[in-house]
Amino acid sequence: MNQEKFRQLEAIFHPKSVAVVGASSDRTKQGTIFFQALLKAGFKGKVYPVNASESEISGVKSYPKVTSIPHAIDYVIISIPARSILKVLEDCAAKGVKAVQIFTAGFRETDTPEGRWLEEEMIKRARRGNFRIIGPNCVGLYNPVINLNSWGLPSAEAGSVAILSQSGGIAAAATRAALARGVRFSKVVSYGNGADLDSTDFLEYFAADPSTKIIGIYIEGVEDGRRLFQLLRQVCKTKPVVMWKGGRTKAGTEVTMAHTGSLAASYPVWTTLSKQVGMAQVENQEDLVNTLLAFRCLGQFRGHNVGIICGLAAAGGGESVSATDICSNLGLEVTPFSPKTRSLLKSILPPAGTILRNPLDIGWLGGNFGPLERALTAVAADPNIDLIIIHHPIQRVVTLMSREWAQAMTDVFIRLSKQQPKPVVVISAPGFPTTSEQWQIEQELAAAHIPVYSRLEEAAKAIAKVSQYFAWRADLDED
Amino acid sequence: MNQEKFRQLEAIFHPKSVAVVGASSDRTKQGTIFFQALLKAGFKGKVYPVNASESEISGVKSYPKVTSIPHAIDYVIISIPARSILKVLEDCAAKGVKAVQIFTAGFRETDTPEGRWLEEEMIKRARRGNFRIIGPNCVGLYNPVINLNSWGLPSAEAGSVAILSQSGGIAAAATRAALARGVRFSKVVSYGNGADLDSTDFLEYFAADPSTKIIGIYIEGVEDGRRLFQLLRQVCKTKPVVMWKGGRTKAGTEVTMAHTGSLAASYPVWTTLSKQVGMAQVENQEDLVNTLLAFRCLGQFRGHNVGIICGLAAAGGGESVSATDICSNLGLEVTPFSPKTRSLLKSILPPAGTILRNPLDIGWLGGNFGPLERALTAVAADPNIDLIIIHHPIQRVVTLMSREWAQAMTDVFIRLSKQQPKPVVVISAPGFPTTSEQWQIEQELAAAHIPVYSRLEEAAKAIAKVSQYFAWRADLDED
Repeated sequence: MNQEKFRQLEAIFHPKSVAVVGASSDRTKQGTIFFQALLKAGFKGKVYPVNASESEISGVKSYPKVTSIPHAIDYVIISIPARSILKVLEDCAAKGVKAVQIFTAGFRETDTPEGRWLEEEMIKRARRGNFRIIGPNCVGLYNPVINLNSWGLPSAEAGSVAILSQSGGIAAAATRAALARGVRFSKVVSYGNGADLDSTDFLEYFAADPSTKIIGIYIEGVEDGRRLFQLLRQVCKTKPVVMWKGGRTKAGTEVTMAHTGSLAASYPVWTTLSKQVGMAQVENQEDLVNTLLAFRCLGQFRGHNVGIICGLAAAGGGESVSATDICSNLGLEVTPFSPKTRSLLKSILPPAGTILRNPLDIGWLGGNFGPLERALTAVAADPNIDLIIIHHPIQRVVTLMSREWAQAMTDVFIRLSKQQPKPVVVISAPGFPTTSEQWQIEQELAAAHIPVYSRLEEAAKAIAKVSQYFAWRADLDED
Repeated sequence: MNQEKFRQLEAIFHPKSVAVVGASSDRTKQGTIFFQALLKAGFKGKVYPVNASESEISGVKSYPKVTSIPHAIDYVIISIPARSILKVLEDCAAKGVKAVQIFTAGFRETDTPEGRWLEEEMIKRARRGNFRIIGPNCVGLYNPVINLNSWGLPSAEAGSVAILSQSGGIAAAATRAALARGVRFSKVVSYGNGADLDSTDFLEYFAADPSTKIIGIYIEGVEDGRRLFQLLRQVCKTKPVVMWKGGRTKAGTEVTMAHTGSLAASYPVWTTLSKQVGMAQVENQEDLVNTLLAFRCLGQFRGHNVGIICGLAAAGGGESVSATDICSNLGLEVTPFSPKTRSLLKSILPPAGTILRNPLDIGWLGGNFGPLERALTAVAADPNIDLIIIHHPIQRVVTLMSREWAQAMTDVFIRLSKQQPKPVVVISAPGFPTTSEQWQIEQELAAAHIPVYSRLEEAAKAIAKVSQYFAWRADLDED
């Protein structure tokens, strides 16, 4: 990516002032939702509502047109009917804005002559006005560095993960789910139809962006698949890329046309190309989030021998059996402990009801957190083990014992994670509903960079992706 | 199952008095957990703690031995070290109890001569004393009719689903998760090593039990596979059976030996047999619960054309694409609406941003619940559609609008479900964490027999299992 284009995108992602065309006193309108969210998030810049018929919105002076705003405007969010868009774009050109994000749908994706014509005219206005378009049919940007958060996401500091998504709903939902697990973002963009700026532009930008270390992608189709994969081939050499390709089946592919008007290559072709370029491929939103979380927390993990701890607050034998099944199916190994570890565990743990093998069904231990910590340390020190997975039934411990009890166990896991180099992963089954105690403890684990998953299967899939990627990169470096 | 054996099991599942051997003032002990849970659940019978060294536990008089209790005892729960079990079993014989549930582990599953000997001696004591054993290495029974709930499950009325599980942890966790989704149980049993009463005994009983209509199974291995599958062949003809087989992989199978000491047949053999007998096979706890929920709510559903509604509180295009992919992969069809439905929808819904196809990206509708209801009714009346799946982002609606708004939408879905015969399924994405508003609304949907799933994929898998089962049964009836 050349310097000029990088600077252009850098400016687009860091606007100093934003106008929201279509904000109103009707809080069901998407324009209003964007505007209110920016106010609430404390966007570190100016926000102006633009509405032809209201003079004030939520106590903020409103302007009839973008050109009536008596200040410079970098970025315009548009959410008004498609038929009124072109006029607004002319105002944007007159105002000298840098970029326009269009939520409105009803363009190329309708597969009608009018829709296609409107989209082409939009691009002409952008070229003449020297501004760029994000969308249409998208929810645009999220940049936590400047609290550019129009999606109602919870407040969070910036981080190292970027997502680019063709779908706005998925961009927002995946970002929200990842934030809850402690993933922090450099930037996220939803680009919809990609009429002007498209997946490849944003991928180039994220590749060049020093604050982005890990990239997630949701994509349905692309205009220039060759260029995308050429780019991916380069990017994957230095930054992990996790891609969820929408429109995998014939039926799904037909729907992508109606959604963002893009043509999709056949799924087997995508899968083959993804493997060739070293990309991690996932098949749903949960695995996209889970895999980004694993890349964020596991460092350059490329082992495959996992030590599993279960039974901490319940009969754990069934968990052991299914854990072993799941890992084996994903290419991870629940390797036997070394003789030294077994004899260490024998000296630490009570004899009955505890199975001194991997998975280690460790039992309640009657609240003796010392033996728990020593047993975990012994497992972590085992040369046969690369990573430790702990079933931590937080809510059950809180219910049967106390918040303090669950906290003491959590402290053991956090110390274990800090005091030795092997990654620690926690499985915390969801509550019905999840209590605030469980939520708080999960947040503490997340803050300590311990990834928390609801189910072992999710964790194992994500761990396997990280291991495969870094093994691939290690092979690359050796060649 | 002969009348005598049925009456014997009926009596075991309906004890009038329970003694808990191993209850104490140490609340980390499993015996204490069972005892306290029975008290808290309001067991409709007498509960007596048995402890050699404490005279009172939680204000309840405790007895040193089972034989010291001055009342008849039907059922004994034992949770003490393995070496002391035989003596307690002799007391049980002397007391004339009907059945004993043994939590303690350390028997055949240890694969040691001592473990095997102890288990054989236990059986001898039971035969001599004319009582039956459930376990060892299990958490025994749950029967909501009499509040026999020693697992700390939330209070719930009885229902029509039974689970039999080799693992106690999985029995309790699956029951808990299913209760949260509105599944109600006739009985649940965890039988561990199955030293005396085994999977086939309980399956026979559930088959004969008039209050049980749907059966879930978690099994790792079985002594007499031929008998089990002969039974299943009969049971599946009248009651749906959902089975999760633990120990699918070679590694997992080795762990089953250590867990409950049972030998497992190869997984491909189980899969083939399962198909032959008409059983629904699942591969993890979530799908076991999800499939039981679908059997409970969908009636004798055997269609495969689903109408999907999305975008109710967010851009829904990405959801549409992935929904179509998921259904297609599972043999469900997201069929096009009929021309009549399309023209009806055109007259009801606003033109822009709404894609008048299936999945129907219905948009916000500005809180107009009338058009929402009319649109859903039109979709439900479409002869091309057998079942309606609605993405209902409860938490997002509550956050952006209000609890009342989310409630009004929920009321529409409940009316839709009641006023026409096609099943309605709701997808409600989990919150971070799930708020009490979302939880309450999900409970209302569950109470209206509308199954709620976190993700479309889970729902589609479960729906497909129900459809396959009833299609298989219809073929059977025609033969």
